[in-house]
Amino acid sequence: MYTVYGMSSSGNCYKVKLLLTQLGERFEWIEVDTLKKETRTPEFLKLNPNGKIPLLRLEDGRLLPESNAILCYLAEGSAYQPQDRWSRAEVLQWLFWEQYSHEPYIATARFIRHFLKNPDEPTLAQKTERGYQALAVMEERLSKRTFFVCETYTIADMSLYAYTHVAEQGGFDLARFGAVRTWLARVAAQPRHLPLRW
Amino acid sequence: MYTVYGMSSSGNCYKVKLLLTQLGERFEWIEVDTLKKETRTPEFLKLNPNGKIPLLRLEDGRLLPESNAILCYLAEGSAYQPQDRWSRAEVLQWLFWEQYSHEPYIATARFIRHFLKNPDEPTLAQKTERGYQALAVMEERLSKRTFFVCETYTIADMSLYAYTHVAEQGGFDLARFGAVRTWLARVAAQPRHLPLRW
Repeated sequence: MYTVYGMSSSGNCYKVKLLLTQLGERFEWIEVDTLKKETRTPEFLKLNPNGKIPLLRLEDGRLLPESNAILCYLAEGSAYQPQDRWSRAEVLQWLFWEQYSHEPYIATARFIRHFLKNPDEPTLAQKTERGYQALAVMEERLSKRTFFVCETYTIADMSLYAYTHVAEQGGFDLARFGAVRTWLARVAAQPRHLPLRW
Repeated sequence: MYTVYGMSSSGNCYKVKLLLTQLGERFEWIEVDTLKKETRTPEFLKLNPNGKIPLLRLEDGRLLPESNAILCYLAEGSAYQPQDRWSRAEVLQWLFWEQYSHEPYIATARFIRHFLKNPDEPTLAQKTERGYQALAVMEERLSKRTFFVCETYTIADMSLYAYTHVAEQGGFDLARFGAVRTWLARVAAQPRHLPLRW
């Protein structure tokens, strides 16, 4: 059985829970609170020297951090990861894009507004601007297709869904992103779906 | 033949050049200057709506952005990408870590100091602190092994080498990171190596 070290309010951790649930895998969830610095204890740093969650532990004790690397590992051979080389490259393109051009703005704006409750935080305006740029890139992609890669629901969709479906908690108004909203509903309609309840 | 849209001074673009060279692939390099906003022209945005380089074009016209997705695509089936599922997951772990916890600090500090020549930039102190945290994570990993994954030179090493071997341009002193310096020399000694000359 897998063990996941994660925080229930985190979109990065939610990705792993969503995929394991949709794969029908049993797993143990160990709640780790970053706000209480539980990822910075000597015990946790032995598990992940980078001090971050989510962290996947295999039955034999091997440990894998980085949410999108965990998705790739778990999805291998399943319907959620394409088989052909080009489609897998496109999945990776969107997973890297999510971590570099989406999460640092949309997730961070959500953290500042929804958890720190600090709308006067000086970096929030820049994060909001970049977050809207990311939503525009998604809208452009989704205006011509049903899912991000090869017209089927993959881990690229799961990863991007994680923080997009709670983007309003970061102050983002999705009204003018019609293709994104349609896609959010399409992802939510997948079998064994679960939302990030927070 | 592959075409790479890239900027010669960029570590992200250099990764692609390094891998193609070590694979012995011929490629055309199209220089794109981000400082002149050449990635923001309507023509370039048609190629990559995210407005970023590097961008790989296949002979048939297909386009792939995101440096580390390009590395995974090009390395498939080569000695630079492990075959087994777990080792590939570990390669991805380090590729995602590079884009989230290393590049935003070490590459950005280099950009601010070396290209903008603006050591008074207000975010530089935070980027420097996080960059040193990234170097400490690398030092910890490399103190017990020769390369990042499965004791062979892979695309994880190429990706992390890109901005680490020019970290001094970002003001980082590698003196206390002995394992990192030994690893830099080990990467530079690989066949068909080329440095980022800038």
